Order: sequence, then C-alpha cells, then structure tokens
Amino acid sequence: MNESVQHKELAFIRSVAGLFPRHPQQVNGLFQADAEIIRLTDREGEYLVLKTDGIHEEIRESLYEDPYLIGWMTATAPVSDLAAVGAAPFGLLLSLVLPSAPDAGWLEHYQAGIQDACRTYGMHVLGGDTNFDSSFSASATAVAWLKGPKPLLRTGMQPGDYLYASASLGLGGAYAYYRLFDQRVQVSYQPRARLDAMNHIGRYASACMDTSDGLFPALSVLSEINGTGFDLTVPLEAVLHPAVALVQQHSRLPSWMFLAGPHGEYELLFTVPEAAHQQFAATSRHEVWQPQLLGRVIAERTICFSSESLRVCCAPATIPHLFEEAKGNIPSYFERLLQQHATWAGP
Amino acid sequence: MNESVQHKELAFIRSVAGLFPRHPQQVNGLFQADAEIIRLTDREGEYLVLKTDGIHEEIRESLYEDPYLIGWMTATAPVSDLAAVGAAPFGLLLSLVLPSAPDAGWLEHYQAGIQDACRTYGMHVLGGDTNFDSSFSASATAVAWLKGPKPLLRTGMQPGDYLYASASLGLGGAYAYYRLFDQRVQVSYQPRARLDAMNHIGRYASACMDTSDGLFPALSVLSEINGTGFDLTVPLEAVLHPAVALVQQHSRLPSWMFLAGPHGEYELLFTVPEAAHQQFAATSRHEVWQPQLLGRVIAERTICFSSESLRVCCAPATIPHLFEEAKGNIPSYFERLLQQHATWAGP
Repeated sequence: MNESVQHKELAFIRSVAGLFPRHPQQVNGLFQADAEIIRLTDREGEYLVLKTDGIHEEIRESLYEDPYLIGWMTATAPVSDLAAVGAAPFGLLLSLVLPSAPDAGWLEHYQAGIQDACRTYGMHVLGGDTNFDSSFSASATAVAWLKGPKPLLRTGMQPGDYLYASASLGLGGAYAYYRLFDQRVQVSYQPRARLDAMNHIGRYASACMDTSDGLFPALSVLSEINGTGFDLTVPLEAVLHPAVALVQQHSRLPSWMFLAGPHGEYELLFTVPEAAHQQFAATSRHEVWQPQLLGRVIAERTICFSSESLRVCCAPATIPHLFEEAKGNIPSYFERLLQQHATWAGP
Repeated sequence: MNESVQHKELAFIRSVAGLFPRHPQQVNGLFQADAEIIRLTDREGEYLVLKTDGIHEEIRESLYEDPYLIGWMTATAPVSDLAAVGAAPFGLLLSLVLPSAPDAGWLEHYQAGIQDACRTYGMHVLGGDTNFDSSFSASATAVAWLKGPKPLLRTGMQPGDYLYASASLGLGGAYAYYRLFDQRVQVSYQPRARLDAMNHIGRYASACMDTSDGLFPALSVLSEINGTGFDLTVPLEAVLHPAVALVQQHSRLPSWMFLAGPHGEYELLFTVPEAAHQQFAATSRHEVWQPQLLGRVIAERTICFSSESLRVCCAPATIPHLFEEAKGNIPSYFERLLQQHATWAGP
C-alpha cells in the first residue's frame, strides 16, 4: 500500500481552479459536490444548480461513435451530476464543435439523441454555441431549481455509514472493453441519469456522487475529500451488472477491473448513516429501483475489497493512478491493470 | 444587389436548433436575443439569464495567442451577450480542453485573464470541466439574475429608429488585420463587455445586439429577424476606432472592410425609437461612455453605407456571405473582400 499515491486529477484541477475565489452564495467548495449549488439570497431553502460537463475523450477514443449515443450522453453527463445533488434539470445549454462539413444524417441522429434525453429528463434545450473544427466535441450545461430538500454533497459521510450504489455496477467498464478490446460479446450502453432515485436517496443519504468515472475513481475522490476510506464488504462479483458476467466468460478478467474506470455507468454512489439505515432499507423495498449495498465507510484512508479469490486493501488513489500513469493511453492502461492484478494475486 | 443571398450561419443553426422545442418560460425565440432569458414563474418581472459562448476559431487562427487575452476573452464573450440583454453576470462556468501537458506559465496567465475579467465584471467562477486533447479550446457559460427592467431583445426595432453603437467600431477588424496580415502597426485588443452602458441603453432602446462578430454580420442578423434594413447615414470613416486610422495609413484599406467581421469589438449595437431619441441623446451627454450614431432603420431589407468615396446599397447578408463563401479560409476571405470592393468601386 502506497500512501503517497495521490489523485493527480484532483491535484491538477486544484491548481487550475483553486486560485478562483468562490461566490459567497455558492454552497459547495471545490470538489464538494457533483454540481454547482447557488443559494438564492432572498429565498430560504432555494437553490440554483448548474453543471457543465463535456464528453471529449470518449469521442476521441471511439468509445462513442453512434451519433445518437453521443447526443444522449451530451445531455446525460451533466444531468447525472445534477441528480447526485438531488436537482431535476429544466434546461440545457450546448457548446458544440462540429466538423466544417457535418454529415446531415449524423447531425440528425445526434439531435435525436439530445432530444430523447431532454424528453426523458423533462428539460428543454435553452440555447447553444456552435464552432467548427476538424473533429466533433461537445459539452453542455444543465440548469435546475432546487426547492425544499437540502442539496446532497459529496462530503458529509462518517465512518460506519453504509455505502450503496443506485444499481449494479460495471456496465461502463464492460462497454469500454467491448468497444476497445473484444467485440465478441456485444454490450449495450445508454445509461439514464438517476433522477428517479435521487429523491429517495436524498431523504436518507449523508453524501452522494455519481459513477460517471467508474466506482474506484469515485471512491478515491470521496476518500480524499471526506478523509475516510471504504470497506467493500460485498464481494465485487456480486455487485456487477449482468452484462459484465457475459464479458467475463470470454475475457476471464477479474471483477474489480470493470469498476476501475475511467468510463463509468452513471449510477449514484451514496452513503447512509447507521441511524437511518434500517428505515432506508425498509422503504427501498417499495421503490421501482433497487439500491445495491457495497460496504461501509471506514476511518482509515484505505479501500478494501474482494474480487473473486483476491482480498485487497490499497490506498484510495491506487487504481485511478494507473490510468494517470498511462497518460490516457488505453492499451498501456490495460497493461497496467493486468500488472496490478498480478502483483495483488502474487506468484 | 442579390436578394437571394442568405445568412448561411443562421440557416445552419436553425437546422441544428430549430428541431428543439422551446422552454415555455423562455422569453426569447431562436436568434431573438444575444442570451437565453428564462422567466421566473413565481416572480413577476424577474429572469434567469444564461449564455454559453466559445472561442475556438480565434485560437485556431492564432488571432488570440497570449494566454492572458484568451482567458480574458473566454469570460468576455458570454458576458458581452448578457450585457446586450441588460443582465449583469454573477457567475461563470468553464469548459476547457487543455493540451495533455499544459505549460504551467501558460495556464497561470490564462487563469489571470479569467480572474481579471471576473473582477472587472463582478462575477465568480462557479465551476468547470476540463478535458484533454492536442490543442487548447474554451467555452464558458455566464449566468445572471435580471430584476426590474425588461430584457432587451434583438427584435423590436421599427423603421425610423436610430441606430447606435456603444462606441466607435472596427477595433476587432484592425486587430485581426494586424495579427494575420501586417505587423507594422501594432493594435492592442482587450475589449470590455459593455456592462457600463447597458442600463442607460436599456431605458431607451427598442433592440440590442453585441458586435462580437463585427458590425455587418450583426446588421445582417438584425435585418433578417426584424424584416428591416439599415441606412448608415454617417460615413463609416467617421465611426471608426482611432486604431483603425493608423492601420489604414499603411494598408489603404477602405473603412467598410474593418467592419466586415467576423472578428468584432464587443460593443453594443442598438436602436432608439424616434419618440425617445431626443431624451436619449440629451441624457447620453452626461454618461461616461459616448454612444456613436450610425444611421436609421429602414423598411427595405437593404443595407446602405458610405465608405470614403463609395456609396453602397446591398443585401444585408452580402458582406457576411463573403466569409461563408471562403469557408473560413482567411486569405481567401481577404481576397473576396478586395474583389467585392473592386466590384463596388467600378472600373
């Protein structure tokens, strides 16, 4: 276990954004929430919630190629962040970079993906900006009002809290493996931002974050900002999306690798205090969605998990650090994952 | 005069954005305002105003190279659009694409440009999203509350209205000429969004739009959405920024070319109804900024102007169409401007 391993992306963003003073009405500090939460000065308990999120690497690495999926994800990425703070969006602003001569059919499918996502999430496109360059990229800003419930932050968890996901995990990893390494088992991917689960979660959770970057990167961030760790008491093979098992039949990859990120499944990851746990578990049985128990929050800044016969305790940033070391090179990252597994599995 | 000349960018954006239904609380239709204006349902006369704007071509064409200027413009571009509807921003969300190994000094100057703009405009960075690719690009979303005055739209002008700019024009064109064609006369460029002028303008104006894309492209958009034209009764050489005259000493280029866009000066272009004109002119004398009279709105969808010995009446989209024909190729665009001038000047 290497305690000096740090989450480099956080360190970098801190160096970019740390200089800027925060708005006096902004509820969340840097990294403290999935979205930006602005308190309305003249209305107690009301907030404006905003989030800008881009999909760039996913397109460059050909993870997303279908224009409908790219449109769907352009809208889903920032909306998932709004869901993590408990806010339902009403609007979306687009920022597109289009190739100089965009294919009309391509654009039509892209628009359809955005439009279907807007319908699904109950929001409207408010406006946008279009630039032209050699390749396509997109980012979007989702906007919401939040009235009534307190916004959920990433901070607030305590040792002893139960760790849950809004559903089984690993679809993001399985889809990336299918797209980039092995097409034998087709994996369908069109995640839906968890607006359906957020109100129930908001009533019980002490902290929340989405898994847009995968489980382990999210846990690493949560560890760092809460000064805690996690004991994933449920074996990882028991928390996986059914599609992962099919991919595993061919690939024989260990379960933890499908949760390593950085391509995630846009579920919500949240903690429930011990005092509220019984009621949360009881009421969740009546919900249309089924939360997936993962483990507990622990005081030590360590992540422990079991994946098949392996039992690992490591520094929280160990797994996301492998991607950072690979400098975004996917084959090199995959190599590092295999090496890490060999190191853990021993001779 | 070619009436079939259309503003292609508008047609393209209509094809991208026209499909999306508008939000029922959105005040502005497509193209009808520089920013997106959302009526608050439970508060009469209050609005949330948002605008996403990117600087992409300006960086790709090396028009902006100084990281401080790029940072300043990242913030200024969307804020200028907010100023055009009369809204003062409180926050900014960034969407950045950074090179994989960004130079620390470069980033520091970029941040300083954003930070100085935020201080100047009285707003805070609320959050952002960072992606990595081979080259830098940036877009930003500015956010404002608008209480009290009705938001200014691009629509609402009538034939007979007076056409004004918030200051002399042409600095954007002169700067582009200096950067891309001739370094003999250095042109300084760091436009300031016209938050200082918008309240006064808002009391009198029938319509408003910023000149981020230059005078003639703005007039073309205003013509199309209002169904009007413009008679620029003041000779263009009399409305130019002092820096343009210095560039003209070397370049001998006609005045109209510095107003052709698509690189503008971020002034506000607005119309004042005849009935309000006397009072507007009288009160403007006491303002720290001095509006620049340009001409009048006319019923015919034509733009007439004089530039030195030339007197031209043309279809509103004629000049922006030259850039569209050149498909963004700057030397080819410059060639077309010279050819157009030769056609107008005659043998």
